[in-house]
Amino acid sequence: MRPGVRAWPGTRPATPTLVRMASIGEMGEDALIAAFVPRLPVSDAEVLGPGDDAAVLAIDGDLVVSSDVLIQDRHFRLDWSSPEDVGWRAAMQNLADIDAMGAVPTALQVTLAAPPTLDADWVLRFADGLREACEPHGVGVVGGDLSGAREIAISVTVLGETHGTQPITRADALPGQVVAVSGPLGAAAAGYVQLTEGRRIDEESIGLFLRPRPRIGAGLEAALHGATALMDISDGLVRDAGRIARASEVGIALRSDDVPVHEGARFAAIELLVDPRPWALTGGEDHHMLAVFPREAAVPAGWTVVGETTDAFSGVRVDGETPVDHGWDHFGG
Amino acid sequence: MRPGVRAWPGTRPATPTLVRMASIGEMGEDALIAAFVPRLPVSDAEVLGPGDDAAVLAIDGDLVVSSDVLIQDRHFRLDWSSPEDVGWRAAMQNLADIDAMGAVPTALQVTLAAPPTLDADWVLRFADGLREACEPHGVGVVGGDLSGAREIAISVTVLGETHGTQPITRADALPGQVVAVSGPLGAAAAGYVQLTEGRRIDEESIGLFLRPRPRIGAGLEAALHGATALMDISDGLVRDAGRIARASEVGIALRSDDVPVHEGARFAAIELLVDPRPWALTGGEDHHMLAVFPREAAVPAGWTVVGETTDAFSGVRVDGETPVDHGWDHFGG
Repeated sequence: MRPGVRAWPGTRPATPTLVRMASIGEMGEDALIAAFVPRLPVSDAEVLGPGDDAAVLAIDGDLVVSSDVLIQDRHFRLDWSSPEDVGWRAAMQNLADIDAMGAVPTALQVTLAAPPTLDADWVLRFADGLREACEPHGVGVVGGDLSGAREIAISVTVLGETHGTQPITRADALPGQVVAVSGPLGAAAAGYVQLTEGRRIDEESIGLFLRPRPRIGAGLEAALHGATALMDISDGLVRDAGRIARASEVGIALRSDDVPVHEGARFAAIELLVDPRPWALTGGEDHHMLAVFPREAAVPAGWTVVGETTDAFSGVRVDGETPVDHGWDHFGG
Repeated sequence: MRPGVRAWPGTRPATPTLVRMASIGEMGEDALIAAFVPRLPVSDAEVLGPGDDAAVLAIDGDLVVSSDVLIQDRHFRLDWSSPEDVGWRAAMQNLADIDAMGAVPTALQVTLAAPPTLDADWVLRFADGLREACEPHGVGVVGGDLSGAREIAISVTVLGETHGTQPITRADALPGQVVAVSGPLGAAAAGYVQLTEGRRIDEESIGLFLRPRPRIGAGLEAALHGATALMDISDGLVRDAGRIARASEVGIALRSDDVPVHEGARFAAIELLVDPRPWALTGGEDHHMLAVFPREAAVPAGWTVVGETTDAFSGVRVDGETPVDHGWDHFGG
């Protein structure tokens, strides 16, 4: 078992049940909610949980809020991801967005729209994935909404609060500072390529594509070490560094040899006869943190320096070259 | 012009443009966001708005949070509702959920998933509808997410805060108290029936179906008058009264003759040769408030007493009879 993930004995059968579950349409909204809500994690900040017009939370400090949407066949595939994986991903990428402000996540709101023919079991196991991702962090699901739809559409809003630090944006990096990442990159891209090509070379990177595992708390750590700009890497190091460069009006010079590449991704790349560095530079969804620190000595242990900021140019250069954009458009076909 | 709704001169052409707009797929995510965000309302509580990993809000008191999802062809029809109508409804039903706690709404998070072929103009006019509903209340859209999808799926999370009162739930009504509603009911149902039957008898009720106009602040007013239970009527008076009855473990006796029926709904009913009272009793989506007050003298001016709580039975009775459930299941075909 990986660190930070608890077992939940008794909430699921050890082997897949052979009894056909009802669909959510057959089960009906009230029965589904009655089965769904008890499987959700409870927030440490919860004053009033699901079941009324709204939930109530006790918040100290400033409130930090972010949302992400996950659409079937665009953000996940039912033949690749288990329902727990989808719940985990929906939660974790949102927790990372709060960590990426140097803040602490406290609660999620989750809306789920799904075809009436979907197995109710899928929805309940989706709740289990939310819980597995959230509960170690004291984060709860405090409310949401369920609806019918033609395809599965999940929307998560995450709430967090600052803990004695100012929120760290993307906009306050200065020239001559140090750019660092909080973990090895490229695992999610390596996992995606393996699944796409029907090869299972490295199970860890496949697992990290299906369930990203950024170290939640790395962003707060960066804030406490004086980071001037901070975000999580969701669309790839180069593209996301470009966002900090643009918001802070600095140039960012990255050194590709210094970018830490996930070990399993390296291994998969050898078997696939490809260079793993593009996965680490442009593959997204690892959700590790990208931060700018005022000087090298401020970089926390366990982070890797991958470049620096400059006023000599704008945008991002990799090894002195302007990279071709490997952007991902969310409306693309 | 209705009270509480401002005009927004200059934000839209007075006549529909004949130039074909780009689709959102052609326009691309970055350009769409750049056009979308400036049309959104700004929250009075905003510390940091859209564009970073998360938004930041200053919150006093307890945080109150709720979410609703709207799916194309289930919650709205593109041939009935303008994009502004959909934005208005998405915002307003959420504002009502915060008012229904006796709290004050401050900000929305909005996620929108839509087919790449959708006109970008639709998305921008959707933002206008959000703004028209929110801005009079100082409520802003502080963040969200956009994605491709097969059908339009909107998810709104609304944040609010308590203003010196405790949140009012559904659970604290006692027997022998007074049940009241904050406005006339049945307009949305009358509008729906007219659109379904292709008759336009009363434009006001059609308009109220497309753009519900509860008086935001009625819930806080109820809280300040000592309401013991409070919710907004979204699924019909009888069904929603049943929710208070169940949560508070009381019976609720409603008198159908006392339920205020919207004037336009009455007029439409005459033309359609039907009784309008079922619309007022079981039609949802008017979003007026349903509250229980400790005694008749506590009911604020402008509210209408429609019954009382009792320990003589459980559930809801209308004129002494147990009503047939006219429930609405959100996973229904």
